[in-house]
Amino acid sequence: MKSTHLYRSLALTGTLLISACASTEATDTATATNQLAELSAQAMNSDTAYEIVKSLTVEVGPRIAGSEGDKRAVEWAESKFKELGFDNVYKEPVRVRNWSRGIADAKIIAPYQQKLFITALGGSVATPEGGLTTDVAMFNSLASLKQADAAQVDGKIVFINQRMQRDRAGKGYGPVVIGRSQGAIEAAKLGAKAVLIRSVGTDNSRFAHTGVMQYSDDVQKIPAGALSNADADNLQAMIDAGNDVTLAVDMRAKEHGWQTSYNVVGEFTGTESPEEVVLIGAHLDSWDEGTGALDDGAGVGIVTGAATLIKNLTGQPKRTIRVVLYASEEFGLTGAQEYTRKHKEELGNIIVAAESDFGAGEIYQMDTLFTPNALEVATPLFAALAKIGIKQGHNQAGGGPDVTMLPKHGVPVVSLLQDGTYYFDYHHTANDTLDKVDPKALAQNQAAYALLAYFMANSGIETRPAPKETAQSH
Amino acid sequence: MKSTHLYRSLALTGTLLISACASTEATDTATATNQLAELSAQAMNSDTAYEIVKSLTVEVGPRIAGSEGDKRAVEWAESKFKELGFDNVYKEPVRVRNWSRGIADAKIIAPYQQKLFITALGGSVATPEGGLTTDVAMFNSLASLKQADAAQVDGKIVFINQRMQRDRAGKGYGPVVIGRSQGAIEAAKLGAKAVLIRSVGTDNSRFAHTGVMQYSDDVQKIPAGALSNADADNLQAMIDAGNDVTLAVDMRAKEHGWQTSYNVVGEFTGTESPEEVVLIGAHLDSWDEGTGALDDGAGVGIVTGAATLIKNLTGQPKRTIRVVLYASEEFGLTGAQEYTRKHKEELGNIIVAAESDFGAGEIYQMDTLFTPNALEVATPLFAALAKIGIKQGHNQAGGGPDVTMLPKHGVPVVSLLQDGTYYFDYHHTANDTLDKVDPKALAQNQAAYALLAYFMANSGIETRPAPKETAQSH
Repeated sequence: MKSTHLYRSLALTGTLLISACASTEATDTATATNQLAELSAQAMNSDTAYEIVKSLTVEVGPRIAGSEGDKRAVEWAESKFKELGFDNVYKEPVRVRNWSRGIADAKIIAPYQQKLFITALGGSVATPEGGLTTDVAMFNSLASLKQADAAQVDGKIVFINQRMQRDRAGKGYGPVVIGRSQGAIEAAKLGAKAVLIRSVGTDNSRFAHTGVMQYSDDVQKIPAGALSNADADNLQAMIDAGNDVTLAVDMRAKEHGWQTSYNVVGEFTGTESPEEVVLIGAHLDSWDEGTGALDDGAGVGIVTGAATLIKNLTGQPKRTIRVVLYASEEFGLTGAQEYTRKHKEELGNIIVAAESDFGAGEIYQMDTLFTPNALEVATPLFAALAKIGIKQGHNQAGGGPDVTMLPKHGVPVVSLLQDGTYYFDYHHTANDTLDKVDPKALAQNQAAYALLAYFMANSGIETRPAPKETAQSH
Repeated sequence: MKSTHLYRSLALTGTLLISACASTEATDTATATNQLAELSAQAMNSDTAYEIVKSLTVEVGPRIAGSEGDKRAVEWAESKFKELGFDNVYKEPVRVRNWSRGIADAKIIAPYQQKLFITALGGSVATPEGGLTTDVAMFNSLASLKQADAAQVDGKIVFINQRMQRDRAGKGYGPVVIGRSQGAIEAAKLGAKAVLIRSVGTDNSRFAHTGVMQYSDDVQKIPAGALSNADADNLQAMIDAGNDVTLAVDMRAKEHGWQTSYNVVGEFTGTESPEEVVLIGAHLDSWDEGTGALDDGAGVGIVTGAATLIKNLTGQPKRTIRVVLYASEEFGLTGAQEYTRKHKEELGNIIVAAESDFGAGEIYQMDTLFTPNALEVATPLFAALAKIGIKQGHNQAGGGPDVTMLPKHGVPVVSLLQDGTYYFDYHHTANDTLDKVDPKALAQNQAAYALLAYFMANSGIETRPAPKETAQSH
């Protein structure tokens, strides 16, 4: 029943479909420009992507790698691709780590009792049976923790209290996320019993932000969690007032071994060069507390919607358009690593790869990693993107997370940079739900990916050899 | 140690204190205007109110009526009044209902499993041991539920899905809150097993909003909860798609009988007419999930801060300034009812009463319930308020919740209307924490209450007989 809207919006497109088919052979710039303009206009007004995100979040919901939700997501993706008319739908197995959060409770015991809202970091071990109760040692950053003496930390819970800064490109993430990934290792080296970080997030709320963390084989594994920003403020205020603060923490995270999940792939096979592939991707897994609407339901909707609209509005592409929905991005890009390994010999056939995995904010810039000549050939594409607010960026793109490993194999990539000003208010929280997705901004994303994939699949552009040097976009 | 800031800010005020003392006898308007302007300027720049809210939320935290937190809040209030120099500090016992939330879990079982974020409504009974699992019947409002046939509802969980509208004056609250208070009664009349309402709140988040609900003695008591708005969206989407939806709900709320709490009172005794009282109040209790920063820590800070600044900046008032921190507002204004009963014979001595209990947004209007002559006498007050953005409103004020019962006893009241545009994003949720309080807006509130209480205590204004008719401000 979810497809009622889809079919209604697609039914509007007869005119464009006919005109596009009639001009299949046209190669002059004016015609290309007209086609791109028509595709863009239709995509900007289509709820295809939104209905896909809605379907995924409402019908599947949370889908942490290897879970029942993940299995349902794989089934959902296959049947959604088929329902939308993809002519080649398949899945490729990926062994994924299956970890469950369990409960995560914390409270201040002394100087006065206060509940704290926390969450376990992804991959954390549990606390000892019955939890642990001990004093807190606060540090402003991972760097200041590293400079501490063991005497300050030994037997305590380390609290890394570094606030993330808001930024359109998400530049506040990198300097802080290091505390999430490395905090347990550095704290354990100094004898800490556990580590709690201030959430890596830009909101003031009581939602704690999860995200994957790391252990080192030669250092004791200690429980690792995140405090909501509001609770971190509260704890900081107590400590700043000169109190010795004691916390009780009870976390019941568990490993369930390795499970089989899948990269799910849907294709519109190319009519002229089916072996040449335009790859647009997103990741299918999510964290377990929200419904993964922004991360990465939005990406799933954007790339699947874009490919669907190209087919329905302009017919079968000349090159193959391949939508890859990756498994287990959150636990270390597992699906993307497997995809790259499995298809190593065929990576030379990828004309371009791009992933959408930064929420649903409007795109403001397209960075590329193309041979310089291709940038000139792509002039009509850049012009069409400019009309929907997207400027041409630099030529050192890294692509999204699941395609970051492709440039070193010579694969040209594109980064369509989204406005991430508010992305980290919701990122990796229970509050990542459908209502955070702005349908209008999502449609602009869909239009951008539709323009990109249509142009790359139908213009005959040659993007290789790609430059060697990439710069991290965010 | 919390008072370091307070004393620092008060130390700045020597000049004003001296000039105010020197002009105690001055009655001309120019001097009054100057005094009000100086008091306002100091109060607008003082963090006194903010430091009080911070102290209450950080040192006490959640304080639902009759709980351990409530007991600590009473101790905190007494010692805070003394620390701030109130010359008469006392508490008056109030018997309060003590209810605890316990856990409240819910999930969709069919057509596919999805966790829901809910909370129990205040005063709800628990579900039967082990929870209950049954189908859902959705209604758009309490009114549409009332028109339903028993066959639609019998044996089911009723879902009242009415969204609250955002409004500066909080006018969206009334039309929706009736579903919270009466939903369990109307659903039970038709044989429902439980009722879940869409949260009475203007946010899109996964925080559910609690609030007190009612039962009727002649109708079965069924469990009553609220779904977060994001979860209500999700449930609605499933139902709109034509699914029969089954829910499992497990709620472990408990009654713990009646406990003794206290209205806590701090006074600056009047030098000339100590028996004449300017009463400014707020409520000391809060719900149990947040730290009660907006509801009503802000009010506690505003009225306590205002009275403190008057004393410190202008000396002892001519009439008594009485700050009343009421017990158990959330469970039916219990403290205020007891206060009115106990002091019935002395209500005639109250020159004016006002409560701050609508968060920490800036005040934009002052409504009064004064004899018309007093409005002219109060011209300097209105002029001083106008300079900090507050216009004169109507003369049918109802006062805040804990003073609403006073006008029928002839007590003149004032309503200082706060901007409540975002108040209901946080109201009665775990997300009602200190970071939601804007120190600048809070200081403007403090200045307004300081101007009001100073003028009412020192100008000799006579406010009686108050008009009979009051209008609900919000």
